[in-house]
Amino acid sequence: MRRAAASLLIFTLTGSLPAQPAASEPRVLGFTTQSEPGEVSWEQRFKLLPDPQRMRANMERLSARPHHVGSPYDKENAEWILAQYKQWGWDAHIEEFQVLFPTPKMRLLEMIEPSKFSAKLEEPAVAVDPTSNQKDEQLPTYNAYSPDGDVTAPLVYVNYGLVADYEELARHGVSAKGAIVIARYGESWRGIKPKLAAEHGAVGCIIYSDPADDGFTKQAGFPKGPMRPPDGAQRGSVLDAPLYPGDPLTPGVGATKEAKRLKLEDAKSIAKVPVLPISYADAQPLLAALEGPVAPARWRGALPITYRLGPGPAKVHLKLAFNWDLKPVYDVIATMRGSEEPDLWVLRGNHHDAWVNGADDPVSGQVVLLEEARALGELAKQGWKPKRTIIYASWDGEEPMLLGSTEWVEEHADELRQHAAIYINSDGNERGYLEVEGSHSLQSFVNGVAKDVEDPESKVSVFKRQRAHLLLHGTPKQHEEARSGANLSIGALGSGSDFSPFIDHLGIATLNLGFGGEDPSGNYHSIYDDFYWYTHFSDYDFVYGRALAQTAGLTVLRMADADIMPYDFAGLSHTVAQYIDEVKALLESRRKEAEEIRQNLNEGVYRATNDPRDPTVAPSPQEIPPYLNFAPLDNAVAALDRAAADYTKALASAQSKLLQPDRLKTVNQDLAMAERKLTNPQGLPRRPWMQHLLYAPGWYTGYSAKTLPGVREAIEEGRYTEAEEQVVLVARALRDEAAWVEQLSKELGEGSGGSAP
Amino acid sequence: MRRAAASLLIFTLTGSLPAQPAASEPRVLGFTTQSEPGEVSWEQRFKLLPDPQRMRANMERLSARPHHVGSPYDKENAEWILAQYKQWGWDAHIEEFQVLFPTPKMRLLEMIEPSKFSAKLEEPAVAVDPTSNQKDEQLPTYNAYSPDGDVTAPLVYVNYGLVADYEELARHGVSAKGAIVIARYGESWRGIKPKLAAEHGAVGCIIYSDPADDGFTKQAGFPKGPMRPPDGAQRGSVLDAPLYPGDPLTPGVGATKEAKRLKLEDAKSIAKVPVLPISYADAQPLLAALEGPVAPARWRGALPITYRLGPGPAKVHLKLAFNWDLKPVYDVIATMRGSEEPDLWVLRGNHHDAWVNGADDPVSGQVVLLEEARALGELAKQGWKPKRTIIYASWDGEEPMLLGSTEWVEEHADELRQHAAIYINSDGNERGYLEVEGSHSLQSFVNGVAKDVEDPESKVSVFKRQRAHLLLHGTPKQHEEARSGANLSIGALGSGSDFSPFIDHLGIATLNLGFGGEDPSGNYHSIYDDFYWYTHFSDYDFVYGRALAQTAGLTVLRMADADIMPYDFAGLSHTVAQYIDEVKALLESRRKEAEEIRQNLNEGVYRATNDPRDPTVAPSPQEIPPYLNFAPLDNAVAALDRAAADYTKALASAQSKLLQPDRLKTVNQDLAMAERKLTNPQGLPRRPWMQHLLYAPGWYTGYSAKTLPGVREAIEEGRYTEAEEQVVLVARALRDEAAWVEQLSKELGEGSGGSAP
Repeated sequence: MRRAAASLLIFTLTGSLPAQPAASEPRVLGFTTQSEPGEVSWEQRFKLLPDPQRMRANMERLSARPHHVGSPYDKENAEWILAQYKQWGWDAHIEEFQVLFPTPKMRLLEMIEPSKFSAKLEEPAVAVDPTSNQKDEQLPTYNAYSPDGDVTAPLVYVNYGLVADYEELARHGVSAKGAIVIARYGESWRGIKPKLAAEHGAVGCIIYSDPADDGFTKQAGFPKGPMRPPDGAQRGSVLDAPLYPGDPLTPGVGATKEAKRLKLEDAKSIAKVPVLPISYADAQPLLAALEGPVAPARWRGALPITYRLGPGPAKVHLKLAFNWDLKPVYDVIATMRGSEEPDLWVLRGNHHDAWVNGADDPVSGQVVLLEEARALGELAKQGWKPKRTIIYASWDGEEPMLLGSTEWVEEHADELRQHAAIYINSDGNERGYLEVEGSHSLQSFVNGVAKDVEDPESKVSVFKRQRAHLLLHGTPKQHEEARSGANLSIGALGSGSDFSPFIDHLGIATLNLGFGGEDPSGNYHSIYDDFYWYTHFSDYDFVYGRALAQTAGLTVLRMADADIMPYDFAGLSHTVAQYIDEVKALLESRRKEAEEIRQNLNEGVYRATNDPRDPTVAPSPQEIPPYLNFAPLDNAVAALDRAAADYTKALASAQSKLLQPDRLKTVNQDLAMAERKLTNPQGLPRRPWMQHLLYAPGWYTGYSAKTLPGVREAIEEGRYTEAEEQVVLVARALRDEAAWVEQLSKELGEGSGGSAP
Repeated sequence: MRRAAASLLIFTLTGSLPAQPAASEPRVLGFTTQSEPGEVSWEQRFKLLPDPQRMRANMERLSARPHHVGSPYDKENAEWILAQYKQWGWDAHIEEFQVLFPTPKMRLLEMIEPSKFSAKLEEPAVAVDPTSNQKDEQLPTYNAYSPDGDVTAPLVYVNYGLVADYEELARHGVSAKGAIVIARYGESWRGIKPKLAAEHGAVGCIIYSDPADDGFTKQAGFPKGPMRPPDGAQRGSVLDAPLYPGDPLTPGVGATKEAKRLKLEDAKSIAKVPVLPISYADAQPLLAALEGPVAPARWRGALPITYRLGPGPAKVHLKLAFNWDLKPVYDVIATMRGSEEPDLWVLRGNHHDAWVNGADDPVSGQVVLLEEARALGELAKQGWKPKRTIIYASWDGEEPMLLGSTEWVEEHADELRQHAAIYINSDGNERGYLEVEGSHSLQSFVNGVAKDVEDPESKVSVFKRQRAHLLLHGTPKQHEEARSGANLSIGALGSGSDFSPFIDHLGIATLNLGFGGEDPSGNYHSIYDDFYWYTHFSDYDFVYGRALAQTAGLTVLRMADADIMPYDFAGLSHTVAQYIDEVKALLESRRKEAEEIRQNLNEGVYRATNDPRDPTVAPSPQEIPPYLNFAPLDNAVAALDRAAADYTKALASAQSKLLQPDRLKTVNQDLAMAERKLTNPQGLPRRPWMQHLLYAPGWYTGYSAKTLPGVREAIEEGRYTEAEEQVVLVARALRDEAAWVEQLSKELGEGSGGSAP
C-alpha cells in the first residue's frame, strides 16, 4: 500500500539553515575536503547505472500475476528477487514469518428496502488489459481484518467517516446507532472508517470509491484513462494500524513459527464491525435510495444524485465470512558488510507483495530498489567499499498491514536498536515531484541529496522543481519560505508503509521517498493496477524510476560513506518549536470554540437560526479547556536549539579538518542513537507499541501523522490532565536529546585534529 | 428578474453607531419625544394589516397565465392592479412606454461533429403542475437582445465565462477565438458571458444551467423538489445593463411614443454575438464530446462526465433569429399626497411582468407591495396622514432589463431629482433572512426597522436573526462585528432590479429589501416558476410575505412621517473609508502579483513546473503598477467623518427638542438632496448614464456592485492614469457631501428650539 491515494506534496520550508555552505567548505554534508572528491566520483558513477529498460522488464516480470500474501506468485517473486541480489554479489536470504491473513469465503451486500438490489462486488476484466482477466488468482474485493458478520440495518451516509463528519451528522439530528454506515474512501485511512463507525454504534460499514475522489471527475475511467471505472473497488486492510501494525496475533514479537500467539478473539487490532469496500456502481443505488436531510455541500460526491444522510429508508443486508488462516510471508534481506564501521547499519526497503498485480503499488518502487542494489553491487565490483553495512530489504506482507517489515523489526529489535543508523523507505513511484517525509534530523541531509538529482522533465534539480512548485501552489507560508531560499522542510511520518516499525516502534531515524503528483490515478488496490495501466498512464518511460533510484541511492551512499554521518539537529529543533506552537494554538482554538458555543447558547443564536423545515441540533455546552503549562516544552526546545547550533558549528569545523577515525567511530555510533532519545519505552497512552514522542499515526487519522502525538491528541480529545503529563514526558526527551547533541559536539571537537592542508 | 439566482446574505456589520440610543431619547430615528408615540401607534396598527391569505389569492390571480412584456395577461394584470390601488383610495394611473422587445422566430442548436445531436430547447409540461402546460402563451427559452446569427464553430468550455476564467483558459493554451463558447450560469450576471466571449473573439455563446449550481445537487429536481429539472432552462436578458439599462433605443430619455429613437444597429447595449440558454440535458452531449485539457477542479459541475476545455472536436451550429418589435409596457403608478411636505416623495416599487408565470419572480414581491398599499389605504381611512407624498409603483418590463422603471425615471428625471427622498425596491420574496442593500446613509435607519419586525419562524426580530446567522456563518470579520453588537451593515447596490435608474442614474437614496436564504431554488426564469412551485417549495404560508410587507411598510411609514427624515452619515463615511482601504489593497495586490510573475519568470519557475503531458503557458510579464496618490480620498473621507459625527450629535439633540416645522422643511429638503452630491453628471468613464460615484453595476460582473467604480475598475483593468483622475472626482464629491452634511447640522441646530418638556 502507499501512504495515500492522493499524492502528498509534503516538502515545506524551514529557515533553519542556509542553503549553501561557504565556498571553502565541503559541499556534501558529512564529508571532509579530503574525502569529498572520492565520494563525488563514486556518486557520479552510481547515477549512470539505474536503467529504465531493466525497471520496465522487472516490472513486467514481478506484476505478471497476482502476488498477494500466501499466493504462489508471491513466493516465486521472493525467490526471484533473492536470486537477483545474490547474482549482484549481495549476501542475501529469505526470512519467513507466519502471520494471520484472512481471505473471504462469503461476501454479500444487498438492499432489501425500499427496493431490491444486489451488489455485484466484482471488478470486470478489460479486453485491452492482458492481466485483468486472471480471475483464478485474484483476491476478491474485501477489507482484510473485517470481522465475520451478518447484519441488516438502515443505511446512513457519513461522508468520509471522520470525527468531524459524525459531529456534522449530529447537528442534523442523524445518528449512526444501529445503522450500517456508508462512507466514501478518502481523507482518512480506510481503517478509521469502521473504527469510528463502531464507536458511534453502527453495526456495519460499507466503504465506496466516489468518482469525485478517484473517478471520472479527474480523467477518464480505465481503460480510456487512468481513473477508477464504475465497477472498480479498493481492497485494503482495516487492521488498527495506529494501535499496532504487523501480525495481530504477535504484537511486539516476531511471528516466527514458535512465537506465542494471542487467541483470535484477543487480537485488539482487528476491526470491530463488518466492513466491505464497494464500487460506485454498487454504491449509487444505495445512496440514491436514502432520504432524510440533504448532505452538506462538502459531502457531495460526483454521482448524479442528491446526496442525503438517511437514516433509511434504504435498508441493507451485509454478510461477510473469512478464512482465518496463518500464511507465510517471505522477506528478502540482502546485506553488504561495511569496511570500517560494520556495526552501523544503513537500511533500505520497499515491499514486493501486492493486493493483485500491483505494478504501481509496490512494483514501481521495488524495481527502483532492485536497480539501486544492482548498481551498488556494480560499484562494489569496481572497488567501492561502504564504510558501514548496507541492508536492502524486499518486504512481503506490507498490504495486510506492514506484516513482513514489522515482524522482522520485532524479531531483530535488539540488534536494530544497537546498530541501525537510518531506514530509507519507498513504496511505489510515479511521475512528478520528490515527496519526502521523515526524521527532521535528516532534513538538511536530504535537501543536499535533492539538489544533486536532476528532474527528468525540467532538467533542473528535483529540489529546485519542488521549490518552484511551492512558489506557485504552496500555502502563503510555504511560498514565503520557498522565496527565502532556505532548505525545504520535510513532512512528518505517520503510517501506511514499512517505515512505521522503524520510526514508531524503535526510534530509528527514517526517510520515506517517492515521486508523484503529476498523474491522477484511480487504480489503487484494484485489479487495474497492473503493467498495462502503469505503462499507459504513469512513468511509462521509467525516467522517474531512475530519478528515485538516484535519490535513494545517493541517500544510501552518503549515509554509508560519510566520515560523519550527515545528521543535523537545527532542522529538528526548528520543527519541534513549530509543533509546540501548533499545540498551543490548538488549545487556544478549542478554548475559543467552547466559549463561542457557550455564548451562542446563552444568546439563543442556534434557536434563532434554526430552519423548521431543515432543523438542526444545537451543540451541547463544552468544558472550557484549562490553561496548560507548556513551559517545560519551551525550555527543552530552547536547550535543543542551542545544542543544535553548537553541533552545526562543530560539524562545519570538523568537515574542514583531518579526522581521527577511531574517535569518529564513537561520534557515529552516538549519532545513530540520537533519534532513540526521542522515544519512550512505555509508549503513547493506550498504545505502548508506539514509542516515538514526536511522530505517530493519528489515532483518528491513520496514515497521516500526528506530531507531539501524546500532547496533541490529549488536547484534541479533551484529556487535559493527560496532556500536561505528556508535556512533561516530551520535554524530558527533548532535554535528553539536547544533552546528547551537546555531548556529540564535544566528541566531534575531540574527534578532529590538525588543520586541513 | 431578481438580483441573483443564489440568495445573497449581504448584511454585514459596521461599528459606526451604537445599537441603542440612551434611554431618555426617542427610540425611532427621526422622531421626537413628542411625535414618537403617535408613530408607534400607527405602525402597530399597520403591522396587523398585511394578510397572508390575500397574498396567496393575489399570487394565484397574477401568476395564472404567462405575463411577459407584450402579452395579453401582462396588460390584464396591469389593469387589475390599477383597479386595486384605486379601490384602496390611491390616486392611480397607468403610464405607458413603447420599448424594443425582441422575441424568437428561430432557435436552432445542433452538434454536427464528432456526432450528431439536436438540442431540444423545450421545457416540458409537468402533470401535477397545472400552469406548466400553457404552451401557447409561454415565451420559449431564449436570451433577449441576443443578435440574430447563424454560426458554426468548435466548442470551448469557459466555466462561468468570467475574466478570470479566460485567464485560466489561456494558461492551458486554449483560446476562444473563432469558437462557440459554452458557459454555465452563475457567478456573474448572464449578459457578461456573451460580452466577454465576444471580447475574446468567440462567434457565439451558449449558457447552460449546471446541476451543481441550481440542479439536483442541492435538492431533488422539479416537481419532486424545487430544483431545475434536466430540461429546465433559464430565460433572461443579455442587454448590457452595466452600460445602460432600459429601452436600448432611447438611452437617457423616456420611451414615449414620440421619443427620438436610435436605429437598431446603433443601439450599443445589444449583445455582440448570438447567445442561447439551454438545459443541462441539452448541454451534456456537447460537454461530453469535448476533448483537450481536463478542466480545473473549480470548473467541474455535477454532470457525470469528465469536464474538458476543448476546443472541439465537438463542433456546433447555432442559428438564431428574432422579431425586433416595439412593445408596450404598462407601469401602474399610485400616489398618496403628503400633508405637510408634499414635495418630498417616498417611492416604493416592485415589478409585475414575468418571463413566464413568475409566481416567485416577481409576483411574491408584487403581492407584498399590494398588501402594503392596501394597508396604507386602510390607515388613511382611519385618519393617518403621511407628512410626505408616497408613490407606489408596479413596474412593467423589468425582465427585459428594467424597461418600465428606467423609462419612467428618465421621463420624470427632473421632478425626481427635485422631489425624491428615497426609493424602496423589492423583487420577489422567499423564506429566511432579511437581505438589505442600499445607500449607506440609510444603514442606521434600516437597522432600526429590522429591530421592529418579528421573524415568523424564530419569533426574534429579523435583525437579531440575521445577527445570529453572521455569528454562525459569517466571515471572521462579520463574526467579530456581529459580536460587537453594533448595527449590521448593508450591502452595496449593483443592478438587476428596478432600483438601478434611481440610484445609478439620478443619485436617489435607495434600499432593496427581501427575505431569502432558507430554500434552494432552481425555478429561476423557467415555466416552473409558478403558483404550484411557490406554494410547495417556498414561503407557502406567506408569513415571510407578511414580514416583508411589515419591513418595507415601516420603512415607508417612517420616511413619510418622520420629523427629520432618518438619514445618518456615520454609516456612510465608515463604509466609504472601507472602500478606500479596499482599492488601496487592490493596487497593492496587483503590484505584488506583477512582481511575483516577473520574479518567477526570471527564476524559471513556470518552466520548472511545466508538465509535458499537460502543458501550461507561463504568464506574460505585466506592467508593475505605479504608486497612486490616494491622499485626496483620505482627506475627503476624514472631512465626511467629522461632518457625520457632528450631524449625529445635532440629530440626537434635535430629537429631544421641540421642532420648528418650517425650518425642518428646509432640513428635510436638503437631506433628500444629500445622495445627489455623490454623483457626477458626466457619469463614469465610457458609461455616462451611470452617475453615482460610490456604487455601480460592475462592467465585468453585471448585477454585483463595484464600489468606488471609477477608481476600482481603472485599477483592475490597469488604467492607472484614469484611476488617479477618478480619485480626484470621488474626493471632490465626498468633500461636497461633507460640506452639505455640515450645513445640515447647522440647519438642524437652527430648526430645533426650546427643550423637551
